[in-house]
Amino acid sequence: MYPSSVRQLIDSFKNLPGIGEKSAERLAFSMVNFDKETLTNFSNAIVNVRDLVSTCKICGNISEGDICSICSNEDRNNGMIFVVEKPKDIFLFEKLGVYKGRYHVLGGLLSPLEGIGPDDINLKSLLERVRDGKVKEVILALKPSVEGETTMQYIRKVLSEMDVTVSKIATGVPIGTDMEYIDSLTLELAIDERKDIS
Amino acid sequence: MYPSSVRQLIDSFKNLPGIGEKSAERLAFSMVNFDKETLTNFSNAIVNVRDLVSTCKICGNISEGDICSICSNEDRNNGMIFVVEKPKDIFLFEKLGVYKGRYHVLGGLLSPLEGIGPDDINLKSLLERVRDGKVKEVILALKPSVEGETTMQYIRKVLSEMDVTVSKIATGVPIGTDMEYIDSLTLELAIDERKDIS
Repeated sequence: MYPSSVRQLIDSFKNLPGIGEKSAERLAFSMVNFDKETLTNFSNAIVNVRDLVSTCKICGNISEGDICSICSNEDRNNGMIFVVEKPKDIFLFEKLGVYKGRYHVLGGLLSPLEGIGPDDINLKSLLERVRDGKVKEVILALKPSVEGETTMQYIRKVLSEMDVTVSKIATGVPIGTDMEYIDSLTLELAIDERKDIS
Repeated sequence: MYPSSVRQLIDSFKNLPGIGEKSAERLAFSMVNFDKETLTNFSNAIVNVRDLVSTCKICGNISEGDICSICSNEDRNNGMIFVVEKPKDIFLFEKLGVYKGRYHVLGGLLSPLEGIGPDDINLKSLLERVRDGKVKEVILALKPSVEGETTMQYIRKVLSEMDVTVSKIATGVPIGTDMEYIDSLTLELAIDERKDIS
């Protein structure tokens, strides 16, 4: 019923997370009104992502080239590895501008329920990097969920045999949030991990 | 900070309605994991929309070609014109499959507040189509807002000099909605336009 090019665009949008038929229709129809240059830029951006973006051979970050800009930056501290679930997490932490070490992307979390084991995530290469000997501290920054905690416990265990400090980022009450909007598990953790300020 | 192709894709997504920086980042990062074929199809769909889709010279619908599939369909009734705001509205009504006449897309609504007058929307060509003489009824299907009502009143007035019936689709309580979720203006209209069923 729709012109076939519009139908094709709707179907493409439906591949995106959280975009169903109705949202895809709305987005595709809005693009019909874009000027030709904007459409060309959009199309080129997709082609460039397709042709240029790959996975960093060291840390698993997204990269234009074999090694990402963080791994190839010689000014960064080789003594620390910050372990995250997804490439996007790296950019969240980089925006803060406080961490100057290296990263490692697992690309997933351990989940016995879903059958995701240690060999299914990017863990072996983390152990190899730590075994190299330059790394003094591994900072685990996985989300505080069952899978995240399981993965952090597993990494803590396998790294316990090596000469490296393992830490994890703090869980607790986020700043600026009203208590009533925070889930009970977070509140419990915040009490358990309370800090003496006397 | 992001690889430049990813940054370009984020910026492209931000042109879409309701997509801000955070949503655009989420969508762009999800596309990094798409396979090459899916990315090629998406890019081609945009190029095809750019190169193939234009506006129907008769009714203002989107079309691959000068005249849209509805205007070029000889089986449809030339005696009725269904007036809508946007091309997308046509497809909403076509999905119902009950209307077999012609359409006319205004491409906007009159809004004295925003300085949108009769010359700023696709109104002149509607009058020309009615003046042709074949049209017996013009059905106004604009949204029941201040702008929609203003536009319908204006069209009713200019068409009053011509030999044509002007109707508008009914406003009232939508089916399957709990009363408490319906705004008071709709409820008032539903009372004003009540139907005798005795």
